[in-house]
Amino acid sequence: MLPMWMAELSERSGLPVPTIKFYLREGLLPAGEATGATRARYAESHVRRLRLIRALVEVAGLGLDAVRSILTAVDNPALSLHELVGAAHTQLSAANAATPVSEEASRRVDDLVRRSRWRVAPGSAHRAALARALDTMSGLERPVSDALLDEYARAMVAVARHEVASVASDEPEVAMERAIVGTVLLEPVLLTIRRMAQEHISAGRLRRR
Amino acid sequence: MLPMWMAELSERSGLPVPTIKFYLREGLLPAGEATGATRARYAESHVRRLRLIRALVEVAGLGLDAVRSILTAVDNPALSLHELVGAAHTQLSAANAATPVSEEASRRVDDLVRRSRWRVAPGSAHRAALARALDTMSGLERPVSDALLDEYARAMVAVARHEVASVASDEPEVAMERAIVGTVLLEPVLLTIRRMAQEHISAGRLRRR
Repeated sequence: MLPMWMAELSERSGLPVPTIKFYLREGLLPAGEATGATRARYAESHVRRLRLIRALVEVAGLGLDAVRSILTAVDNPALSLHELVGAAHTQLSAANAATPVSEEASRRVDDLVRRSRWRVAPGSAHRAALARALDTMSGLERPVSDALLDEYARAMVAVARHEVASVASDEPEVAMERAIVGTVLLEPVLLTIRRMAQEHISAGRLRRR
Repeated sequence: MLPMWMAELSERSGLPVPTIKFYLREGLLPAGEATGATRARYAESHVRRLRLIRALVEVAGLGLDAVRSILTAVDNPALSLHELVGAAHTQLSAANAATPVSEEASRRVDDLVRRSRWRVAPGSAHRAALARALDTMSGLERPVSDALLDEYARAMVAVARHEVASVASDEPEVAMERAIVGTVLLEPVLLTIRRMAQEHISAGRLRRR
């Protein structure tokens, strides 16, 4: 591919020139190859980087600090793709990490991971996020049962097997973008299909009061 | 159960007295039995109704008009429990109903329902909500495949079978509250377990770049 000017970079990435210049100033996008005092040429790697930044900001709704820490992980050749995707997920689940978590809920999450024989890092942000969600439910008359958690785990491992298989790529930026888009953008798809399935099942069961 | 005064109604429902008076004025809560010019006694049915309103407002994030239309359905003895839960789901999925939906996406949703042999009403708000989510994805490099939709459908019907079984109740308010709480509050639980499952699966697959 031939290198491109800023105008083409803007067109290819779908981002306005001032936004791209902002990312350059913030150090999120590496500088182009200077061809004069005020002009520079950009490569395919700049397009890929901008598309990833866009997914992180527009799809995942992350702030600049979270984006920066993910890009640092992407640029660290010592990290495996698994660690990379983990870094992105940590940022996604860290959103409301300020709320403390009960010991009881943490224990139930650990038990679920053990029962499922899952490899989930002891310090994974998902463990705290799930414990927090369980705490929210515990104030209700009918808290969520372990049987339902196991059912969710069975269903989600089948789903994740399908999803993760389609993420791998030689380019870390591409794998990362796919992982984030796949995780966040597919959530409403999965949840709406769940509601349709509930409608279908309840159509059989709840015909009469 | 003995009837109760406003103070006890407030304590039992967890809602402040001014909020309860607001619901009374708005006609969402039926008046109590008057015992003088300014006093009234309330029954268990008032507690149940307030708990349902609270779930609709605080958990499902619905506005007064949506709450009113659900309560009208609850009070309509001609509706089956299935229709009742459907009315609630319609309000939940109607949130961003303003965005138009592409024909292509609608057709894919209809095909999914047909392939899955699901009973989902032709006018169900879930169909439009799913088509809308597919439209959001279609702008991306890798739109969601039918194979993934089928995988989601298989996983969600197993989950829904478990969920719907625990909703039934003799009291329409109770069934409704369970259906709404179960649908909305369990979403973060399910999605976080999906992320943990992704971490587990990718731990096996993506060890190296």
